[in-house]
Amino acid sequence: MYHLDNPNIRKAALVIVGNEILTGRTQDTNTQWIAEYLLRYGIALMEVRVVPDIEERIVQAVRDMSGVYEYVLTTGGIGPTHDDITADSVAKAFGVEIEQNQDAYDILLNYYGEEELTPARLRMARIPVGASLIPNAVSGAPGFVLENVHVMAGVPRIMQSMLTYLVDNVLKHGHIIRSNTIACNLQESQLSEALGKLQKKYPAIDIGSYPHYRGGRAGLNLVLRTTDKEKLKAATEDLVVLVRDHGDEPRAMGLQVLIDNF
Amino acid sequence: MYHLDNPNIRKAALVIVGNEILTGRTQDTNTQWIAEYLLRYGIALMEVRVVPDIEERIVQAVRDMSGVYEYVLTTGGIGPTHDDITADSVAKAFGVEIEQNQDAYDILLNYYGEEELTPARLRMARIPVGASLIPNAVSGAPGFVLENVHVMAGVPRIMQSMLTYLVDNVLKHGHIIRSNTIACNLQESQLSEALGKLQKKYPAIDIGSYPHYRGGRAGLNLVLRTTDKEKLKAATEDLVVLVRDHGDEPRAMGLQVLIDNF
Repeated sequence: MYHLDNPNIRKAALVIVGNEILTGRTQDTNTQWIAEYLLRYGIALMEVRVVPDIEERIVQAVRDMSGVYEYVLTTGGIGPTHDDITADSVAKAFGVEIEQNQDAYDILLNYYGEEELTPARLRMARIPVGASLIPNAVSGAPGFVLENVHVMAGVPRIMQSMLTYLVDNVLKHGHIIRSNTIACNLQESQLSEALGKLQKKYPAIDIGSYPHYRGGRAGLNLVLRTTDKEKLKAATEDLVVLVRDHGDEPRAMGLQVLIDNF
Repeated sequence: MYHLDNPNIRKAALVIVGNEILTGRTQDTNTQWIAEYLLRYGIALMEVRVVPDIEERIVQAVRDMSGVYEYVLTTGGIGPTHDDITADSVAKAFGVEIEQNQDAYDILLNYYGEEELTPARLRMARIPVGASLIPNAVSGAPGFVLENVHVMAGVPRIMQSMLTYLVDNVLKHGHIIRSNTIACNLQESQLSEALGKLQKKYPAIDIGSYPHYRGGRAGLNLVLRTTDKEKLKAATEDLVVLVRDHGDEPRAMGLQVLIDNF
């Protein structure tokens, strides 16, 4: 399931450093953006952890995940304030020192000028020894890559520019994952046995079933995902028949996606 | 920091079982709702993990977190389809059997009627031995509580009704956490030294600094959080002075919150 055993899909995990998510102050939107963006390049997000700005929790999450997944991405906690401790925590996770990085210093000096490069801003030049920098096209202060951990800012615009750089320059791509969505008005439990059989017929396809309520009415989205274009086509055709056999007509949304994808 | 050592705040963690979040198909909104709702009752969300519908990953997350936090909440994976494996995974995490629960069966029979209670729907009566049920006011099929793990549906409306029940009937409440937000147009790095000093002056207050870009302009929200009403008032007054000393006027949003909170 979920391509776990598919060597053509690269596996990534995300650590979100952010009290603001954990208190509900901020609605996280980075996860969805990152997940969609990486999938286009054959990299699947396999786990997300949101941890508070506490060194021990960040260190633990980075250690746990960098040992399990090919890539770890982190967002947040690399600004100039007292609660920005991601760089120190990542250094600690790998047992390396942290120092003022000359390239990061030059970037900040160039961005702020000598007068505005305050001690607080200089904190953003502190980078673990042995890390390489991730350029920040939006606001100067760079992220960095240490081992398989990729440390990005949490502000969406900055994160997006950093991840684009990483995908273009650092991360290896996997095979493209294709998906089709079939929307219908059946209930999940009406289809569940048939879907189980379909899953057995197509073990290389990830079949998801997502119920929702809109305007008091239950609906269901059925999603097929795989790197295998031919099998996706066959399974989608089977699924359309399956929905019709249960007395419903797949909605246009699904069929459009179907046409677009082939 | 973050009330870690404050015994008056209860600590919870959330496990989101959901391929649909990890593929970016669905924008998670449950985290924010749960975080805000729990905070009103003195329960702080300390960590969130999003894991795929893979038994081993769910078991691992539940085991890790149930040992560390007073409460673990899970959402998702308790419907009638082949990829709904949360109940089995939680049973496995605690090494207990799973069986058809008589109360859950009666609820489903009452909700669907005998004819509509298909084998697939009957799956939703499979509950770990020793668990107690969480009523589902929206769509029948119950969640359950096993040890300190609270298993809820992922559909927001159903989850919200289940969490409301848990807060009213099961979870112990902590002291109320109060917060004030001061919005200003300063840059984070201008204030970071002063904020560091303010944090030292008020160790029992959690001070967060959240930069954002809107319409190409940088802004900053400063958030103070604590259970101590008097200290919050004093720190807020200090923070207003601090922002003014840096040549900006705190925005009305912050001042309104300030007035509302006292």
